[in-house]
Amino acid sequence: MSAPKVPLEEIQAFAVRGACNAWLGVRVVAATDTGIELEVPWREEFFGMPDSGTMHGGILAAVVDATAGLSLLAVVGRVGPAIDMRVDFHRPMTRGTLRGVGRVLRAGASITSGEAMLYDESGRLVASGRCVFFTAIRES
Amino acid sequence: MSAPKVPLEEIQAFAVRGACNAWLGVRVVAATDTGIELEVPWREEFFGMPDSGTMHGGILAAVVDATAGLSLLAVVGRVGPAIDMRVDFHRPMTRGTLRGVGRVLRAGASITSGEAMLYDESGRLVASGRCVFFTAIRES
Amino acid sequence: MSAPKVPLEEIQAFAVRGACNAWLGVRVVAATDTGIELEVPWREEFFGMPDSGTMHGGILAAVVDATAGLSLLAVVGRVGPAIDMRVDFHRPMTRGTLRGVGRVLRAGASITSGEAMLYDESGRLVASGRCVFFTAIRES
Amino acid sequence: MSAPKVPLEEIQAFAVRGACNAWLGVRVVAATDTGIELEVPWREEFFGMPDSGTMHGGILAAVVDATAGLSLLAVVGRVGPAIDMRVDFHRPMTRGTLRGVGRVLRAGASITSGEAMLYDESGRLVASGRCVFFTAIRES
Repeated sequence: MSAPKVPLEEIQAFAVRGACNAWLGVRVVAATDTGIELEVPWREEFFGMPDSGTMHGGILAAVVDATAGLSLLAVVGRVGPAIDMRVDFHRPMTRGTLRGVGRVLRAGASITSGEAMLYDESGRLVASGRCVFFTAIRES
Repeated sequence: MSAPKVPLEEIQAFAVRGACNAWLGVRVVAATDTGIELEVPWREEFFGMPDSGTMHGGILAAVVDATAGLSLLAVVGRVGPAIDMRVDFHRPMTRGTLRGVGRVLRAGASITSGEAMLYDESGRLVASGRCVFFTAIRES
Repeated sequence: MSAPKVPLEEIQAFAVRGACNAWLGVRVVAATDTGIELEVPWREEFFGMPDSGTMHGGILAAVVDATAGLSLLAVVGRVGPAIDMRVDFHRPMTRGTLRGVGRVLRAGASITSGEAMLYDESGRLVASGRCVFFTAIRES
Repeated sequence: MSAPKVPLEEIQAFAVRGACNAWLGVRVVAATDTGIELEVPWREEFFGMPDSGTMHGGILAAVVDATAGLSLLAVVGRVGPAIDMRVDFHRPMTRGTLRGVGRVLRAGASITSGEAMLYDESGRLVASGRCVFFTAIRES
């Protein structure tokens, strides 16, 4: 693995200039030419279904989006609007820091797809997913 | 359309007992035997990519999840953990109240799928998606 | 509903000039400015898991693709390569003619999303799904 | 990697007892405790859009389904009905043998998710996707 197209510090700065990623508490902890790794510490607002003690699926989706999107920045050097997203929920995520590992599956001229695997503090896969981004330099 | 399995007031109370839906500001405004309708007023934390002036994809995903999940409550009378989710981003969502219209596509013995269409204040479709839920009464 | 951008006969002719749609036996039976409707008669090669007596998920996926893609032709007047597809399997499809009802969810400058609902001969929803197509006139 | 739960020869025999997989020409060429690898030689019926010279998305979807489903047999020792599927189309697949590499992402008590990566003869990723299967021993 080689250096990312954009240095880790710039990816982190970009991430938290976005209000939602700042609220999520996104911390980019690694960046290479294949993708990024980030951490999201727990917030009480993350709880989903009442009394379940587990994270809302939408928060997991938001972290999939952030992990895949910031991986584009590392690999392609720019981001673009997401066209769609898919998330698989593998296990309940309970209170604790979430770790996202992202990579770019395929960077095309117009369309780039990214993948994110999300792990709990014990390293178990809790969710994973993909986003497809529109990355044409000029939109037709 | 007939009455929902669970009355609107109970669906709303259930929704906001969940910390994330409470933070999102979910307001269930209609419920029938086919699904529910909800509103999510704008929050500054919803902004996504820096300087884009648009909503984070993860917030749209969270509202798809809430809209589809609460539709289950109206149609099936109970909820269950989500197995997976898919979201299509049709247009940028800018500052304003988001409206979600949900319905159950198919309620099976073990698996139930729900759909959500999300509209901006002008009634334009900004995102839409589906969630699949595990709704077996007893998990094997 | 008004007339389709491309007449039904031309959509049908286009469909079966493709070897796979011809093999599937695609018959476009309706076309409007919102989408198309098609039928696929049973073939013995459609059986999926051994001894299950049900249709292979890949055939259902192929019919989702054909239904959504040909709806583009009716609504937008042209097709484009698919970026991705998602299929929900709601019920086992047994021997019989499959009916696909397609519509365009959103036609954008570069990206167009289509939906397909697949019914068995009794009118029950057996599968449904979405395809996202790249429809920019000139690929960047 | 260790031995699969079901030996390669039995997985192959199971695969082609299904009429659709037999028609596709599925050849399982490797099986371990993480998944399987298969090949699908070209057929003229695989051509998709007229004059495009490329494979129909539904055939790619069918191969994703077969690759993910047969991986379950290797890893879990049994298969189950698919709940849903998602396919990303990364590059056009032209005439040639398709190679599918499958793995199980997560095997749960009731729900198992599998992934498939599809490569052309030059080893380029042409499509990839996921299937979620219902794998409870007894359906509730």
